[in-house]
Amino acid sequence: MITVLAGGVGAARFLQGLVKIIPEEEITVIVNTGDDIQLHGLHISPDLDIVTYTLTGIVDEEKGWGINQDTFHCLEMLKRYGHETWFNLGDKDFATHIYRTYLLKQGLSLSEITNRICQALGLRLQIIPMTNDKFETRIVTEEGILHFQEYLVKRHTKDNVINVLFEGSEEAKPALGVIDSILNASLIIVSPSNPIVSIGTILSVNSVRDALRKTKAKVVATTPIVGGAPIKGPADKLMKGLGLEVSAYSVARLYQDFLDVFILDYADRNEKERIEQLGLQVIVTNTIMKTQEDKVKLAKTVLKLIK
Amino acid sequence: MITVLAGGVGAARFLQGLVKIIPEEEITVIVNTGDDIQLHGLHISPDLDIVTYTLTGIVDEEKGWGINQDTFHCLEMLKRYGHETWFNLGDKDFATHIYRTYLLKQGLSLSEITNRICQALGLRLQIIPMTNDKFETRIVTEEGILHFQEYLVKRHTKDNVINVLFEGSEEAKPALGVIDSILNASLIIVSPSNPIVSIGTILSVNSVRDALRKTKAKVVATTPIVGGAPIKGPADKLMKGLGLEVSAYSVARLYQDFLDVFILDYADRNEKERIEQLGLQVIVTNTIMKTQEDKVKLAKTVLKLIK
Repeated sequence: MITVLAGGVGAARFLQGLVKIIPEEEITVIVNTGDDIQLHGLHISPDLDIVTYTLTGIVDEEKGWGINQDTFHCLEMLKRYGHETWFNLGDKDFATHIYRTYLLKQGLSLSEITNRICQALGLRLQIIPMTNDKFETRIVTEEGILHFQEYLVKRHTKDNVINVLFEGSEEAKPALGVIDSILNASLIIVSPSNPIVSIGTILSVNSVRDALRKTKAKVVATTPIVGGAPIKGPADKLMKGLGLEVSAYSVARLYQDFLDVFILDYADRNEKERIEQLGLQVIVTNTIMKTQEDKVKLAKTVLKLIK
Repeated sequence: MITVLAGGVGAARFLQGLVKIIPEEEITVIVNTGDDIQLHGLHISPDLDIVTYTLTGIVDEEKGWGINQDTFHCLEMLKRYGHETWFNLGDKDFATHIYRTYLLKQGLSLSEITNRICQALGLRLQIIPMTNDKFETRIVTEEGILHFQEYLVKRHTKDNVINVLFEGSEEAKPALGVIDSILNASLIIVSPSNPIVSIGTILSVNSVRDALRKTKAKVVATTPIVGGAPIKGPADKLMKGLGLEVSAYSVARLYQDFLDVFILDYADRNEKERIEQLGLQVIVTNTIMKTQEDKVKLAKTVLKLIK
C-alpha cells in the first residue's frame, strides 16, 4: 500500500504517472483541504477536485483545474445577480459543489462525500481529505488577512506575505484513514506540492506529523522547487514571506524530521550534498512532468525505493 | 395600481401584454409558490422564475420555462453523481436557484429575494410570492401522494387524480404586500392560470380570499379553459379529479364569491348566459395568446374595465 500526501496540480500530475504503474486499489491519497472555500453558498474543495478530475481524465489540462470543455453560463448569471465571480467555476464543476453541499447538509462527512464522488467517477484509489473539520489557510499580508483563494485567485498573489495561518488546525482531527494509511503504508510519498499551503497544512493536522515520524514505511518527497522556483503556484512568495530560503534544500529541511528520501531535480544537483547532510538519502532525476512519459518515469523512480 | 394573481406560463404571457400598455411600476403580481420544490439541495420556485424570465425577455419561449440558449452541463454532471434529473434545469437557471438558496440560508425571505432578482434583471413591477411560508401542493393519486412537480414533470400527469392537498395552507401567512395590494388596487386580474394549483393555491393562503371579497376594486378573471380544455397544463385532469366540470363556467363558479367580470373565449360564447346567471359580467373575446398582438389586445380588453 502506497500513501500519497497531495495538494492540487503537482500532486495530480504525479498521481497520473503512479496509477499507470501500480493498481489504483493500492493507493491512498491524503488531500489538503486548507484551500476549501464557501462561495455562492456552496462548499468548494479545489484540491480534492483537481485530483479526482485529473485521475478521471476529465480535468481541463490546459488550465489545470475545472472540467474540460466546460461552459460558464451559471457563473455569468450569478454575476448578473451581483455575485463576485473571481473564482472561476464551470457548469459541470458546479455540479460537484452542489452535490457536495447537498450531502454535507444531509450530515455526511467530507470523507464520505469524497468517496461517493470517486465511486461515481469510477476511481478505485482511496482519496481522503486530510480532515473533515473546519480548516482554513489564511495569508497574512500587508493589506490584511486573506483567505488563501483570495490571495491566490482574487488578488493574484500580489500582496506581500507576512505570515500564513492555519485556522482550525488546533482542533482539526485527521479524517478516518489518514493516520492508519500513514502507519500501515509500505511507502509514503510527499507530492511535489506547495510545502507551506498544501503539504504544510496536512502536516499541521493533529497526529499527522507524529504518525509520519513513527511509521516504519519509507517517506519520500519529490521536490516542488526546481532551480529556486516552484513549477506552479506561489510557494516562493509564501516561503519568502515566512523568512525561508526558496530552494529544494529548504523544502527538505521542512520535512527533515520524518523524511527518508528526497527526490531532487537535476537542475539542483549542487544541493545534493547539503540535503544529504540533513541525514536524507537524495536521488537526483528529472522531476518536471510535462509528458505522460515524464510522469511515469518519476513514479517509477520513486517506487524503486520499495523494490 | 393593478394587481395580478399569477401562476406560470399563462400568467407570464398575459403580463407580457399588460406591461406593453401600462407602466411596470403600476403592476403588482402575486405569484403561486405551491409548486416550489427542493432539488439538489436548492430551492426552486418555478412560477416565480417563469414570470421573471418571461418579463425580462430571457425565457426559452419554445419550452415556456428556463432561459433561452441555456446549456444543461451541470445537470448532466449531477446525473453522473446519481441525482435524479427528471426536472430539467439549465446552467443559467441553476444560478437563480443557487442565488435564492444562498440568500434563504442567510435568513432573507422569499419576498426579499424575489425583489433582488427583479432588480438584478431590471424589472420594475413588483413581484410577490403568495407566501414566504412553507406551502406545498400535493396530488393524491391512485399511486400515492405526489409533489405537484412529480405528478406533472416526473410522471407526466399519467396518474388518476383523487384529490389535491395544499400542505401548509393553514399556517401560511400571505407575504408582505399581498393583502395590501388586493385591498388598494384599482383593478385585480386573475390570470388565465390553472384554477386549482396556481390560483387555487393563492386563494387558500390565509386572508387572501377574504381580501378579494372585501376589496372595492373590480376583480376580473380571464378564462384558463377554452373549448373544454386548458391551453396548457393539467387543469382538466385536476378539475375532473376533484369532481368538477371542465369548463369556463366551472372556473367562474370557483371564483364566483369574489369575482366581478369573467373574460370568456369566443369558442365558449354559449356559456355566457350560464356565467351571467352567477351574477357576473361576461366579456366575450379572443383569449388565446399566440402573438404579441394577441397579448396586448387581451390586456387592453381587461384594462377597459377601469377606463
